[in-house]
Amino acid sequence: MTTATGPRPLDELVASIAPLDRDAMEQAAHRLDRLTKPPGSLGRLETLAIQLAGIRGELVMTVERPAIAVFAGDHGITRQGVSPYPTEVTRQMVANFASGGAAINVLARAAGADLIVVDVGVAGVPLAPAVVPARTRFVDARVAAGTRDFSQEPAMTDDEALAAIEAGRRIVDELVDGGCDLLGVGEMGIGNTTASSAIVAALAGRPAIEVTGRGTGLDDAGVRHKAAVIDAAIARHALDPRQPIQALAAVGGLEIAALVGAILAAAAARIPVVLDGFITGAAALVASRVAPGLAPRLIASHRSSEPGHGIVLEALGLDPILDLGLRLGEGSGAALAIPVVAAAAAIVGGMTTFEDAGVTDRA
Amino acid sequence: MTTATGPRPLDELVASIAPLDRDAMEQAAHRLDRLTKPPGSLGRLETLAIQLAGIRGELVMTVERPAIAVFAGDHGITRQGVSPYPTEVTRQMVANFASGGAAINVLARAAGADLIVVDVGVAGVPLAPAVVPARTRFVDARVAAGTRDFSQEPAMTDDEALAAIEAGRRIVDELVDGGCDLLGVGEMGIGNTTASSAIVAALAGRPAIEVTGRGTGLDDAGVRHKAAVIDAAIARHALDPRQPIQALAAVGGLEIAALVGAILAAAAARIPVVLDGFITGAAALVASRVAPGLAPRLIASHRSSEPGHGIVLEALGLDPILDLGLRLGEGSGAALAIPVVAAAAAIVGGMTTFEDAGVTDRA
Repeated sequence: MTTATGPRPLDELVASIAPLDRDAMEQAAHRLDRLTKPPGSLGRLETLAIQLAGIRGELVMTVERPAIAVFAGDHGITRQGVSPYPTEVTRQMVANFASGGAAINVLARAAGADLIVVDVGVAGVPLAPAVVPARTRFVDARVAAGTRDFSQEPAMTDDEALAAIEAGRRIVDELVDGGCDLLGVGEMGIGNTTASSAIVAALAGRPAIEVTGRGTGLDDAGVRHKAAVIDAAIARHALDPRQPIQALAAVGGLEIAALVGAILAAAAARIPVVLDGFITGAAALVASRVAPGLAPRLIASHRSSEPGHGIVLEALGLDPILDLGLRLGEGSGAALAIPVVAAAAAIVGGMTTFEDAGVTDRA
Repeated sequence: MTTATGPRPLDELVASIAPLDRDAMEQAAHRLDRLTKPPGSLGRLETLAIQLAGIRGELVMTVERPAIAVFAGDHGITRQGVSPYPTEVTRQMVANFASGGAAINVLARAAGADLIVVDVGVAGVPLAPAVVPARTRFVDARVAAGTRDFSQEPAMTDDEALAAIEAGRRIVDELVDGGCDLLGVGEMGIGNTTASSAIVAALAGRPAIEVTGRGTGLDDAGVRHKAAVIDAAIARHALDPRQPIQALAAVGGLEIAALVGAILAAAAARIPVVLDGFITGAAALVASRVAPGLAPRLIASHRSSEPGHGIVLEALGLDPILDLGLRLGEGSGAALAIPVVAAAAAIVGGMTTFEDAGVTDRA
């Protein structure tokens, strides 16, 4: 995986992630208190506006060109019966994204966001979508035709994991070059709640049953089986919570690795990242273990009904904007939160102060 | 208050509010289960989509022309020191709405909604805004120059309350004639959390302290004083929970009465109503006591930090979409929820089915 300027080592990318700009945050907080509203009365919108100022390093930001990047890959672990849907659904759904009929198409359009669908490792031959809808792009960034069955062997080699991270980084660098000023992330991959549960169990040091949920619709026995598969894999690969890339390669997924790269690249470019649910959260957890200063640059869009998601949010110190009982993935929660983030951004520059409007402030 | 066709009696308006269309709701639920996503995986969006089908009486709806109507009025009860802001702030804020500098201007624009600002009873001489921003209208629908001090006498006569209801109805009828397909409601009126707390305490039969909050920023002593003023007024006016219009006239507000008319008119026209916070909720509670079948036609945008709001939501059986710690009013929560409602509406018609997309459904 190379770009025009050649691949950048991961540690160079990590080193370019700056702390939040405290001056910009103080200026934003001060201005918010002078706008024509009771102090703090816009609640979460105000804390978001302050965070955005810190991420961007400027008092006033606008969201003109939001994008949602959806990374797709297949999972060898599906051979162990961990999903009610067959693995070919990944491919079919990526084709559905490319032709405009999926939830993320409708929701990205509703949010006014560009949609970029990235094949990092869908099983089978490369996809070649014919016609994609307006403001939608399909990118072939394949590293492999899916991962290996992690109950038997590592899902990826370290080189494959690093190549997928690099693919995610490259996609985001291109989006940022094209003017993207807010990045939502999403994913598609039958079996990827299993991979994510395994990553989170390994990195958070939790028994798999605490982080394992129904995914696309398992019953209780299915959840127990999924958790047992994960616990066995964590033991087999001797995963160490202090080795996030090792865990990612051993039990993760190509699309999850690409998400790690995408999140790190957006953070380095001072672009706010709107996470989706559990899988993007697992990727963010890996990224935050690689880049400890990362989490304040992330925005949690929603609280998923997957139990592992709460553990991820707690580990990252993130408070989700929405709680709508979503458990779809694809970036659907990110798409729904983007208008709230854009509204928070618009407040600081768009409202007048008490002084400028001639409105009497409280006694 | 007359329109081209003359005023309609309230009971005629109430009689034209139909029950939700159960056939359309069943069709929507059936289609949602065939779309390319695990059943129920869009959570609250799916229940919203089903509700919207029931309200509109059709399987597929789109939100093309959302509007937010903000009703403003002043309150004689402010003489009793129930708000940290002076009463002239209502007038100044209405001028701010009309010139585009308030939170609701920024948030309505972000939501792609038209904004209509209605003076139902701002104290002083009529406002005459010079230039209003794009997609913003100011309407003079004044019934009186504010209400009377309800600690001393009824806030409004019955005729004034009915005229304000009629003003709200007329505004919404005009919006619907102009193509409005989703109505958000909001308000401005220094003192109106006191009026709303009094209405809710009276209609829910609760002691005022349970429904009284900080409003725009009272301290603990201020909240206790506000509750005492309310309890005294409920006793003085001998309010009866079975007489909603009597309570509205005695302790309500002109903008709250207009909201009652607006909500009833939208319900009669099968336009979904997105409520804002506590004050619009108090108006919805009055409206639902007048029209018992109303509540399923309402959508609660957010959970406000005013304690009375929870009581209102429970009484109406509504589950708010957002919980962002908002306590501004103006329609700010409604504006933030409109994109979520529009997204829910878009799902049913915008997504393809498993069959049409050639995606394998679960085993």
